[in-house]
Amino acid sequence: MSLGSNAEKNLMINADRLWASLMELAKIGPGVAGGNNRQTLTDEDGEARDLLKNWCDQAGLTTTVDAMGSMFAERAGEDPDALPVLIGSHLDTQPTGGKYDGTLGVLAGLEVIRTLNDLNIKTKHPIQLVNWTNEEGCRFSPSMLASGVFAGVYEQSWAYDRTDDKGLKFGDELQRIGWLGDRPVGHVKPHAYFELHIEQGPILEQNQMLIGVVKGGQGVAWTRIKLTGKESHTGSTPMEMRRDAGLGAAKIAILVNEIACKYSPHAVGTVGHFDIQPNSINIIPGTATVTVDLRSADDTILNAMKEQLDVGVRRIAQDLGLAVSFEKLSDSSPVTFDEECVATLRRAANGLNYPHMDIISGAGHDAFWINKVAPSAMIMCPCEGGLSHNEAEHITHEWAEAGTNVLCRAAIDIAEIVN
Amino acid sequence: MSLGSNAEKNLMINADRLWASLMELAKIGPGVAGGNNRQTLTDEDGEARDLLKNWCDQAGLTTTVDAMGSMFAERAGEDPDALPVLIGSHLDTQPTGGKYDGTLGVLAGLEVIRTLNDLNIKTKHPIQLVNWTNEEGCRFSPSMLASGVFAGVYEQSWAYDRTDDKGLKFGDELQRIGWLGDRPVGHVKPHAYFELHIEQGPILEQNQMLIGVVKGGQGVAWTRIKLTGKESHTGSTPMEMRRDAGLGAAKIAILVNEIACKYSPHAVGTVGHFDIQPNSINIIPGTATVTVDLRSADDTILNAMKEQLDVGVRRIAQDLGLAVSFEKLSDSSPVTFDEECVATLRRAANGLNYPHMDIISGAGHDAFWINKVAPSAMIMCPCEGGLSHNEAEHITHEWAEAGTNVLCRAAIDIAEIVN
Repeated sequence: MSLGSNAEKNLMINADRLWASLMELAKIGPGVAGGNNRQTLTDEDGEARDLLKNWCDQAGLTTTVDAMGSMFAERAGEDPDALPVLIGSHLDTQPTGGKYDGTLGVLAGLEVIRTLNDLNIKTKHPIQLVNWTNEEGCRFSPSMLASGVFAGVYEQSWAYDRTDDKGLKFGDELQRIGWLGDRPVGHVKPHAYFELHIEQGPILEQNQMLIGVVKGGQGVAWTRIKLTGKESHTGSTPMEMRRDAGLGAAKIAILVNEIACKYSPHAVGTVGHFDIQPNSINIIPGTATVTVDLRSADDTILNAMKEQLDVGVRRIAQDLGLAVSFEKLSDSSPVTFDEECVATLRRAANGLNYPHMDIISGAGHDAFWINKVAPSAMIMCPCEGGLSHNEAEHITHEWAEAGTNVLCRAAIDIAEIVN
Repeated sequence: MSLGSNAEKNLMINADRLWASLMELAKIGPGVAGGNNRQTLTDEDGEARDLLKNWCDQAGLTTTVDAMGSMFAERAGEDPDALPVLIGSHLDTQPTGGKYDGTLGVLAGLEVIRTLNDLNIKTKHPIQLVNWTNEEGCRFSPSMLASGVFAGVYEQSWAYDRTDDKGLKFGDELQRIGWLGDRPVGHVKPHAYFELHIEQGPILEQNQMLIGVVKGGQGVAWTRIKLTGKESHTGSTPMEMRRDAGLGAAKIAILVNEIACKYSPHAVGTVGHFDIQPNSINIIPGTATVTVDLRSADDTILNAMKEQLDVGVRRIAQDLGLAVSFEKLSDSSPVTFDEECVATLRRAANGLNYPHMDIISGAGHDAFWINKVAPSAMIMCPCEGGLSHNEAEHITHEWAEAGTNVLCRAAIDIAEIVN
């Protein structure tokens, strides 16, 4: 069911109210450079949850919390048997995170509900605003932990045992901040899930698009590679007698770039982390550890890249006389979002006359896991310079507004207006 | 003047006594893995100096200390006007240093003097055992600081103002440990200087040589290069939109290796230090700093390498859209030791029937500076696997003995026996 043309014309969210809420929430867990440090299950995370709960109460929602601490604030539907339409994202941030990564998705969901309240729009399905616990994974690895338990990817007891750098456990910290809920995780199957998120990349901005309709996500293969050579003096070790682990690390970085460029634009590949030992100007590196991040939305390409990495690294190690070991850190298949959900988003963007394009999410999101148990899709809005996981992360009012309007249209389209 | 054939046959140092002294001194400032942590001007450095002074007293030497803390222990010569022949090295170590780097040269010098005492050999020139302050440069940069002031390379007041990581000054620490001497630095010009040192490289061992006759030292050009690109998300930044500073660092490491291999065996080149920021698995590096260490004994080659580095790095930066800045950390010309001193060492090794070869020192040594003010040369003995600046650094009794015997023959050859 869709809105009549007049109603559709008027159904716009309140962009000023949305922005004011974003700025209000950003005061909690301020960063050192204008962004946020609101890592999961810290006191600041608890404060942010309190504020969200307060806003949900004011909006007349019924908030429940599950055993992973994820918050579900429900706007009742007209059909008591209809499953809820979930909209939301996460409130936790990186240690030097921005104000919009995750937070926009949650507060856009709240703004959708406030707008429906303002306009007294009723839906058949309940609409639930969700705040997933520990999306970032920077304090407790892995990322997307609570949504992963929700989708049956991880065991709850395993999640509880995840520890932070200080040895504190996820389960203990969840209890400590007072957000261990009584609802079993994942006991209600959602009717659908929509998540609005900043792109965290430069594609939409460079293409002057307001909206990205996310068709799916890249598969991700993370590998840690350790090379062991021989630490020796830079001045007194002839070139042909060297076993330079740093040189091996450099060759791996070049290899990864070559492999990814070969499959571009259908793949990316990066060495983001180098640990060179002893890392001294006049000592040939004895060991080098690098991490390799390969991604593609095409499983065949991702597998080919992994194979080429393995063969290429072994060849580099052999040529340089280095020992090599591989550690698989993460290996997830590409995600394809629900076709009907994607079509709903495209329809909403068209109805609003927003310039939009289909896009593949390069980063991981809670929607990737939820897509395993309910029809899901995502909306992206641009972010300045593609900058994210950075305190300087920024979006415009217009981008936030457009994304939220699309979320609103799509949510009520799926939740079915009954006025 | 040289020894008669009988005297020459008998003139052998006491290898057991030398080794016992090496082991006794190594007890001061023990490392964490069997080596030594006896950084310059620490309490442990002071203890080592006390022990050396004690041994020098027992050997009947007159010890003076200069204003840089360098110790000169003199065995009188027969000619009151003859300038002293200096023999020695340094007692300070790296934080995770070995037992022989520097220490062997000092205690070999002591053993030479003990042997001359045993055999009642008199020389025209005095023989002075020297322990140079702060050869390593790991606590107070630069290395070879006191010998540099001795040779007029550095100003004494500038040396005093060098600070360690805690902000403590060289001059203050020298006074604190009680080794600020009253002799002006460099006021006596040596007749000649010989230094025995472990090779700190694999060449002698691989060639099964007992002795390296060091003809000179490589020129060294140290450059710090900083690349600035753009920090962005590994998943959501397409390959062609990247400005990956880590990839630039990798390409510099490959470039340095290519340049050095082109001129090998007459040059070496290394990237030993990589600082990648933010150094995270899923963030494209925004900045990368690497250090480049280029060395050659041939000034023309060294200059060509520096030029190729500059051009190549600028091209890499341009290709990858990176900003680049260069910081010159060190730039010294190749050193050529005194021909007569080198010939004296070669003669001594021949006389002892030791397998020996000419060699170029890859590392820097106090003798490089002293060579500016007095005829100088060095002897090298092998070290196991070329390993140095490492607690596992090791040499055999035989290697220590052979090097010390060559030092002894050369010293009395230059100092002129008068018995």
